Amino acid sequence: MAYGKNVKEILYGGDYNPEQWPQEIWQEDMRMMKKAHINMVTLNVFSWASLQPNEDTYCFERLDKIMELVRENGLKVCMATATGAHPAWMAKRHPDILRTDADGTKRSFGGRHNSCPNSPTYRLYAPRLAGELAKRYKDYDNIVAWHVSNEFGGECHCENCEKAFREWLKDKYGTIEEVNRCFYTEFWGHTFYDWDEIVLPNLKSEHFIHGDAGERTMFQGISLDYRRFMSDSILNCFRLEYDAIKKEMPDVPITTNLMGFFKDLDYQKWAGEMDFVSWDSYPEPLDSPAAVAMRHDLMRGIKGQQSFVLMEQTPSVTNWHHYNKLKRPGEMRLLSLQAAAHGADAIQFFQIRRGRGACEKYHGAVIDHAGRDDTRVFLEVEALGRELEELKDEFLEGRTPSKTAIVFDWDNWWALEYSAGPSVLMKYLDAVKDYYTAAFEQNVPVDIISVEDDMSPYKVVIAPLLYMTKTGYAQKVNQYVDQGGTFITTYFSGIVDEHDLVIEGGYPGELRNVLGIWVEENDALPEGESNSFVYDGVKYPASMLCDLMHLEDAQEMSRYEEDFYRGMPVLTRNHYGSGTSYYVGTRSNEEFYLHFLKNVFQEAGVEPVMNTPKGVEAAVRVNEKGRTLFLINHEKESSTVVLDRDCRNLVDGKVYRSGDCLELKKKGVVILRS
Amino acid sequence: MAYGKNVKEILYGGDYNPEQWPQEIWQEDMRMMKKAHINMVTLNVFSWASLQPNEDTYCFERLDKIMELVRENGLKVCMATATGAHPAWMAKRHPDILRTDADGTKRSFGGRHNSCPNSPTYRLYAPRLAGELAKRYKDYDNIVAWHVSNEFGGECHCENCEKAFREWLKDKYGTIEEVNRCFYTEFWGHTFYDWDEIVLPNLKSEHFIHGDAGERTMFQGISLDYRRFMSDSILNCFRLEYDAIKKEMPDVPITTNLMGFFKDLDYQKWAGEMDFVSWDSYPEPLDSPAAVAMRHDLMRGIKGQQSFVLMEQTPSVTNWHHYNKLKRPGEMRLLSLQAAAHGADAIQFFQIRRGRGACEKYHGAVIDHAGRDDTRVFLEVEALGRELEELKDEFLEGRTPSKTAIVFDWDNWWALEYSAGPSVLMKYLDAVKDYYTAAFEQNVPVDIISVEDDMSPYKVVIAPLLYMTKTGYAQKVNQYVDQGGTFITTYFSGIVDEHDLVIEGGYPGELRNVLGIWVEENDALPEGESNSFVYDGVKYPASMLCDLMHLEDAQEMSRYEEDFYRGMPVLTRNHYGSGTSYYVGTRSNEEFYLHFLKNVFQEAGVEPVMNTPKGVEAAVRVNEKGRTLFLINHEKESSTVVLDRDCRNLVDGKVYRSGDCLELKKKGVVILRS
Amino acid sequence: MAYGKNVKEILYGGDYNPEQWPQEIWQEDMRMMKKAHINMVTLNVFSWASLQPNEDTYCFERLDKIMELVRENGLKVCMATATGAHPAWMAKRHPDILRTDADGTKRSFGGRHNSCPNSPTYRLYAPRLAGELAKRYKDYDNIVAWHVSNEFGGECHCENCEKAFREWLKDKYGTIEEVNRCFYTEFWGHTFYDWDEIVLPNLKSEHFIHGDAGERTMFQGISLDYRRFMSDSILNCFRLEYDAIKKEMPDVPITTNLMGFFKDLDYQKWAGEMDFVSWDSYPEPLDSPAAVAMRHDLMRGIKGQQSFVLMEQTPSVTNWHHYNKLKRPGEMRLLSLQAAAHGADAIQFFQIRRGRGACEKYHGAVIDHAGRDDTRVFLEVEALGRELEELKDEFLEGRTPSKTAIVFDWDNWWALEYSAGPSVLMKYLDAVKDYYTAAFEQNVPVDIISVEDDMSPYKVVIAPLLYMTKTGYAQKVNQYVDQGGTFITTYFSGIVDEHDLVIEGGYPGELRNVLGIWVEENDALPEGESNSFVYDGVKYPASMLCDLMHLEDAQEMSRYEEDFYRGMPVLTRNHYGSGTSYYVGTRSNEEFYLHFLKNVFQEAGVEPVMNTPKGVEAAVRVNEKGRTLFLINHEKESSTVVLDRDCRNLVDGKVYRSGDCLELKKKGVVILRS
Repeated sequence: MAYGKNVKEILYGGDYNPEQWPQEIWQEDMRMMKKAHINMVTLNVFSWASLQPNEDTYCFERLDKIMELVRENGLKVCMATATGAHPAWMAKRHPDILRTDADGTKRSFGGRHNSCPNSPTYRLYAPRLAGELAKRYKDYDNIVAWHVSNEFGGECHCENCEKAFREWLKDKYGTIEEVNRCFYTEFWGHTFYDWDEIVLPNLKSEHFIHGDAGERTMFQGISLDYRRFMSDSILNCFRLEYDAIKKEMPDVPITTNLMGFFKDLDYQKWAGEMDFVSWDSYPEPLDSPAAVAMRHDLMRGIKGQQSFVLMEQTPSVTNWHHYNKLKRPGEMRLLSLQAAAHGADAIQFFQIRRGRGACEKYHGAVIDHAGRDDTRVFLEVEALGRELEELKDEFLEGRTPSKTAIVFDWDNWWALEYSAGPSVLMKYLDAVKDYYTAAFEQNVPVDIISVEDDMSPYKVVIAPLLYMTKTGYAQKVNQYVDQGGTFITTYFSGIVDEHDLVIEGGYPGELRNVLGIWVEENDALPEGESNSFVYDGVKYPASMLCDLMHLEDAQEMSRYEEDFYRGMPVLTRNHYGSGTSYYVGTRSNEEFYLHFLKNVFQEAGVEPVMNTPKGVEAAVRVNEKGRTLFLINHEKESSTVVLDRDCRNLVDGKVYRSGDCLELKKKGVVILRS
Repeated sequence: MAYGKNVKEILYGGDYNPEQWPQEIWQEDMRMMKKAHINMVTLNVFSWASLQPNEDTYCFERLDKIMELVRENGLKVCMATATGAHPAWMAKRHPDILRTDADGTKRSFGGRHNSCPNSPTYRLYAPRLAGELAKRYKDYDNIVAWHVSNEFGGECHCENCEKAFREWLKDKYGTIEEVNRCFYTEFWGHTFYDWDEIVLPNLKSEHFIHGDAGERTMFQGISLDYRRFMSDSILNCFRLEYDAIKKEMPDVPITTNLMGFFKDLDYQKWAGEMDFVSWDSYPEPLDSPAAVAMRHDLMRGIKGQQSFVLMEQTPSVTNWHHYNKLKRPGEMRLLSLQAAAHGADAIQFFQIRRGRGACEKYHGAVIDHAGRDDTRVFLEVEALGRELEELKDEFLEGRTPSKTAIVFDWDNWWALEYSAGPSVLMKYLDAVKDYYTAAFEQNVPVDIISVEDDMSPYKVVIAPLLYMTKTGYAQKVNQYVDQGGTFITTYFSGIVDEHDLVIEGGYPGELRNVLGIWVEENDALPEGESNSFVYDGVKYPASMLCDLMHLEDAQEMSRYEEDFYRGMPVLTRNHYGSGTSYYVGTRSNEEFYLHFLKNVFQEAGVEPVMNTPKGVEAAVRVNEKGRTLFLINHEKESSTVVLDRDCRNLVDGKVYRSGDCLELKKKGVVILRS
Repeated sequence: MAYGKNVKEILYGGDYNPEQWPQEIWQEDMRMMKKAHINMVTLNVFSWASLQPNEDTYCFERLDKIMELVRENGLKVCMATATGAHPAWMAKRHPDILRTDADGTKRSFGGRHNSCPNSPTYRLYAPRLAGELAKRYKDYDNIVAWHVSNEFGGECHCENCEKAFREWLKDKYGTIEEVNRCFYTEFWGHTFYDWDEIVLPNLKSEHFIHGDAGERTMFQGISLDYRRFMSDSILNCFRLEYDAIKKEMPDVPITTNLMGFFKDLDYQKWAGEMDFVSWDSYPEPLDSPAAVAMRHDLMRGIKGQQSFVLMEQTPSVTNWHHYNKLKRPGEMRLLSLQAAAHGADAIQFFQIRRGRGACEKYHGAVIDHAGRDDTRVFLEVEALGRELEELKDEFLEGRTPSKTAIVFDWDNWWALEYSAGPSVLMKYLDAVKDYYTAAFEQNVPVDIISVEDDMSPYKVVIAPLLYMTKTGYAQKVNQYVDQGGTFITTYFSGIVDEHDLVIEGGYPGELRNVLGIWVEENDALPEGESNSFVYDGVKYPASMLCDLMHLEDAQEMSRYEEDFYRGMPVLTRNHYGSGTSYYVGTRSNEEFYLHFLKNVFQEAGVEPVMNTPKGVEAAVRVNEKGRTLFLINHEKESSTVVLDRDCRNLVDGKVYRSGDCLELKKKGVVILRS
């Protein structure tokens, strides 16, 4: 579920901030929203200061008016709790609510996402406000969801956090001896004798800036736990508000807007506490179509592949990129429908009306500073609104029929990039993208799953750069392959346990058995240098990291061609039980991943959704109403697709036969029932 | 006036620091200065610590000796107040005088420009010293000016500044509600209920580092006011000393040395409080001749186009550039006379004798570490001194007969570069330089004026990137054009009011009427990308920002040739009343600006000073004695100029007829009465 | 001496950290070390926290066991004092032990090299532990040396350091007036009236970040003294531990591991307090063979050219470079034997067994995570061990018969790179490397000496970029040349005295006489620009800095070919007494330095060790047993050397005649008695 089974239409709208405007504008906004086929608004995102002018007073009068107005105008409401930024008076009177930076210096009032998650003040007042809001507006049946705070993130290094961290560690480890073991404190003699000796890992203690390679740590164990602790601390804040709302409105789903591959927070853990997932998609100008799709698939994946809400996107332009290029005509529609193709049940914008001041005044909006309903952007929003109205609930709650999964794990991400060596070029997201892109380019749908998720629904499971193997995970892989699955992993995998302690006895540690290899050394190549190998008759580069490995049970598929490890295997296959596992011992290029996965998919019986010309994406969602096929032309030229089954256009009703040609305009999208 | 009507010669000299030397050197300095035709010195720039060894004592004995010495040697004195760096003991005993950095951490003793402008200690002792100095030396009639402090600048973030900022805001806005409105605090709920809730905008509150794009703010309103407040705070310090001196010596003019396009301080506001403008010119090795001239013209312009003093330049080399290249033979003379051509009435160096220690010991000086009067540098200084002596007061107090003005506004600079979006490449100075350079290359003299200045003396007024239109400014432009003026502005102009609040109803806001256009969107192009247009038969690039606009009353002069806005106007002209306005909707290249302004000038009847070969500048000053023509060859080759009227060389007396050829050596300058 | 005259074999082993492992692993470690011919271990480097769990308790039980184990297994011990990182409890209870950063903010517990050198706590507990250790283990006759702390370095800016700095200055200068004179405080009026007014020079006082040119200072005098003071402060900490050990074990030599050209510490001063020098060699992947050799020669040079210990090197890979490339097969052997060729008497690794956790877990080790004795790395370590065993004490205590010296001076390094101007490209190490490399490429052995060392043993002394000439040094040079020596120096030399105060009267100051020139100006060329000159018939570039000079007694050897100083001398020779001095007024390229030094060496009668093909190094050590010749092929191809005298291979006994060809494999090394 996203907005819940009762919502039988695609919700379309976005963040609406009437607080910034005189009331005479409000009516005009209603008119324009109606014209644009907008049927929902997100309200109250940043109103804490006006709702609560001091310790004991709440002022809901203005919000009452707004709520009345939007109800009268038939709009549904996603109701925010307004706690994304605390009031200035609260910072003045209760400085514990202010965060402390990683250099140990306290912040003063400003910005947003600015509350310390372990501040008693914040933990008192934020849920209290959420509860008061829920109490006041619980009878509004146009509230389709609650939206806690906004884009949670960041970190704090204050004394309250330090104390809470010690408690968190006590809960986790029980004894200080176990802390010492897991943090490996014998190294450099960092042995703790008392919990109070533990300080937060940051730029004043264990962290340092490693040139342009960013922040690193001298002790991965404590830093990794700090990341987990901080993600948990902030999640606790979400839950406090969640509970306060549920007490009043137990039946309305609650969410908060996430941000894709956002390193601060372990969203796989978060999703378990959220009623549905919603997220904000702001592609960078140079993002590939696969990069955008991958984020949607992650957001779908963190909550068991359920559909989600596209909470925010810009209708036209952002303002915080270095160069804020306009979305070209058709681009906003394409990105909206691509989101739908990957699991979105609602399409929303930040924001309805462009503000006059502060740092987002040049962020695009449905209604521009000119206030006109004939702008290019407004007309595109209006056209899409009309179209979504036509689509009704045809694909709502639809699931993606994936037979391939990619494993993604926040702990692995943190640990890998905190560790020093073997190469600063080694980035988890790059490795994941290598494989995702190759599947995407073949129209093979992919689920992005966690290490907790069931592998059995999938024919192929890919775990790129699975540096960390948590307790029990190797057995899970063994069993999956043994029972017929196909498993792929890569260089520098299976190295450490969940404490970032190396698993002794030879890499890839506990995965060594299922992979049938032993990796003796890892050779990091500087930027620009590469080795090479031949795969299936074609020569490919081996770059960044080259594992030097020995076959045990596995067979060699390709070998290095150069340097002193010329002739050593680089790509291996191991038959294990009824299944197969692959180890790709280096990083190669896009062509290789495409080629390699094509063969693996064929062998494993994984079918693409459809064959399409280059640059045309085909994606499918299936619900009780049937199978919905999205054809998306990412190219700047029109393209022709030959349909492989009978179809009907869900918007204009046009019918196609298998074998018919369908012309897609540049940046065009067609949605078919097939 | 610069040094005042009584000074009937070009003053020539510079900073002299005998404090750093044993007295036996002083006599030798006198001899060498005389040899170099030096007739003035700036004294006492950094002597606070020695003049005031503790709270209650002043020691003037050494300065007395120095003052006697220079008077005996016939030197005029520009007398500094020595407050550019406070004494170590004062920082120790009164830490409120130390500044606090933008990250909230307090500084300790060191450097210069190091006093908090709102420090009670500084505001007590600095003017007290200035007053004591004036009292002691008021009878020295060779003091031609007072020089307050040195190169004022920087900022402070201490508690005293925070308190003073709140008072400044109270004075400006009266009510906290008006603050909230102007700061747009409904955005992100930053509403203030009490003045004490307002904190300084800095890296601990609203500011952040936006990668290599530098410091940005989340709330432009407060950050802009902080800039104004800090400029005013420092200006108040100048005034405190000013008043203390005037009490004793009401007739001697007072200045402080400015620094060209110096972002910290609103020099247009400062100049109103100074008796005359003086400034320090340190071109970077790669600065174009136009870039250097533009700074002189700014310095002339901030005080109503009056002549100024070139307070500092290096005779040979700086020491703080990355590569400190020597000024080539003739280059110092050229730069000195170019300053004169643009309004300088005095030519001064930093410094007379090169110091032995600390961070400026490798900064060039008239007398080098070798102590010789036969160095290349000394000989060039001496030759120029002889020449300036010959020139007497021929062009002193001369004015530049400009019919073209470029508008420059500090508030606009601050606001534009604080705002987030649409492109980090958008820099105010670049836009100003685009137009200034095109005029300069045609020998069209330009006045740089403020938005307060009268536009009526000019045939053409150019306001590049006039992002901010303050209250009343649009009416002023309307009236100017209506009465026959020619007005040019560019992309992203007319966007906000003086609080950086967007003017609703369509860009360019209040300028829309006079320009006859509506700008719907702004497309930021990444570095390396461009669109194009044809102007007057020639194709030019459109880069960085492309305004997407619609004609209202204006006519299209050029249109975009590419992308989805192909065919939209990029350059327009509007006939309005008796005048004309132009809108240049993108950034183009040097050739375009030259071509465009040439046509505009021709149409508006703006004449160049003279036609010269490429690289030869012609500039004019006019005073009661007549018209002085400066011909300046910036090239590394000699060049020949054909004179267009009868002339006489003011140095060697040589006479030319109209039509005569005049040979300019490489880096050569000739000064003619014409 | 290195490990002392009693050690009659090459010690081979390294850092061993059994504390990180369960005891069952220890026996396996013993077996593997024996197999690898390892005969020593460095113990106890980071065990402070476990040895001293609180104020009053010491726990030596585990160390007792380890000491017994290694003695039983016949291993010698280099015994560390474990004070390289303080315990967490100590930081908690005695925060004075924590350092304060250059931005004035206090650190919290973490990392290593983390103790304030002026902390009373550190100065109490560190020597106390060293003393306790010495007392407990003094009867172990397998202890061959003590190893105080680990890789001393860094700096502190706390109040204790500030107070200590004032005391240090009082000791040095006696009066505040002398401080003012030497710091040149009249500049910017920084005059001190009381010692308490002096604050540490750092980012809150006199220092600033000069873009990518790094940290600079406004007052070189105080910053230079701070560097000296901090080096001395840390050296005092070494001495406190030294004294505590000597009290118990007066006959065992004491060292600490140095780090080559390590800017923080004046190792020439340090070496005087150490019984022998040991150091850690971690070449960067792109270091040239000369760069590596130069560091060894520095480490040999700081203690009068005595042999040293290679305390640490990686057997395979580091983990803290950006790209951690494996040492190729043979590379570890080559680097080990190159160290021996340049003065090492022991070859040691960091570390014996690769740790499981924290930031060095991917640093190479003799025993890898796999725990096997058949890895490539283990086998290479074993092979080298066998070879070193064969070599016995054949070259131990051998000296390098150098007739050429290069002068290196830490004060000069600090002062030059603190000073502002003339070029940020000017780097002391680059200049030293220019000359060192040219000698190295010709197989001319070089001693790197201090300004305190005797010059008379050398035919040629090169002092590149000798910016600072301390009191008496010029007389020393005069005398050396007068008595027949050949002296070479370069651009920007002889400029300042030991306080970084410019020596008046013309550059190169006190060296002007012996060089016979006067340098009038210095022209800094931006990157990419250059002048040129012809030397001995070949044209060479002049770049970075061009001195503009005049001949006095010297003769011109080459002159500038371009720019306004075309025709001025750039390279001069001066006959002075019985000797010759050269001045090279610019920076040129590798070919020039090779050409120039070849001629100088020939003239001065300096012979190469031997003529070898390009890429093959020939180095010699001479002891009582004879002359040992090391032939080292740095190339990736094999190479053939023609021997010029009879030789015997010290490992396999093979005998060669003069004129025989000897084939060196790629990366091959042969050690001959010749």
